[in-house]
Amino acid sequence: MTDCLFCKMVKGEINPDTVYEDDDVLAFRDINPQAPTHVLVIPKQHVSTLNDLDDSNAHLVGKMMLAAAAIARQEGFDQQGYRTVMNCNADGGQTVFHLHLHLLGGRPMHWPPG
Amino acid sequence: MTDCLFCKMVKGEINPDTVYEDDDVLAFRDINPQAPTHVLVIPKQHVSTLNDLDDSNAHLVGKMMLAAAAIARQEGFDQQGYRTVMNCNADGGQTVFHLHLHLLGGRPMHWPPG
Repeated sequence: MTDCLFCKMVKGEINPDTVYEDDDVLAFRDINPQAPTHVLVIPKQHVSTLNDLDDSNAHLVGKMMLAAAAIARQEGFDQQGYRTVMNCNADGGQTVFHLHLHLLGGRPMHWPPG
Repeated sequence: MTDCLFCKMVKGEINPDTVYEDDDVLAFRDINPQAPTHVLVIPKQHVSTLNDLDDSNAHLVGKMMLAAAAIARQEGFDQQGYRTVMNCNADGGQTVFHLHLHLLGGRPMHWPPG
C-alpha cells in the first residue's frame, strides 16, 4: 500500500520512534501520547481494519498482543498493568487504516474506555 | 479454575446473556454496559492475564478478535465502527482474571480511551 503511512514505516521510508520489532510486527511511540507510555503495535502486513481479519491473518493479532506484553515488560509496567485498544472505523476513532494496537501504561486507566 | 467466574460461564454453571459461541470462544453482554452494545469476548481456555500469553495460546487472541468482528456485523455497527479493549492488572482496570476483550459499539467512542 504505497499511500499507507504505516506501510511506509515498515519499508523504512519514514522512521518512527521504534521500541520493538520482529519478523511480523513493528512497534513505535504514538506522536500524541495519552499516557506516560503510549505505543502503537502494527503488523508488517497491511490489513486495513478489524473487519478485514479472516482465518488467514487473524494470527497476526496474537503476535501484536505478544509484542504489547513484551513491551510492557520492557517498559517496566507489566505487573502494575496496562490497557490495549484497537479501534475500527469512525465510531471507534480509527484514523489510520492499517491495523494498529494502542498500548497505554504508566498511569491508572479510567472507565469507560472513551 | 473452579473459582473463576468466567470459567463457570464456560462450564454452564452460570448463564450469561450469550451473543456468540464457537469451539474456542464465548461472548456475552457486559452487566455494566458502557455503550449501547458492550460485549465481553472470552477464550474458553483459562488464561489469567495478557502477561500469561505465549506461543501456545496467543492464537486465542486472534480468535477472540474474529469473534468481536463477527458480533459487530451481527449487531449492525461493523461499518460505523467500534472499539475493542483488553485490560491487564490494576492500572489497566482488569477486575476478572480470565482474559476478556471488551467490544463497545453503537455510539462514537472518545479519546483518550480512559
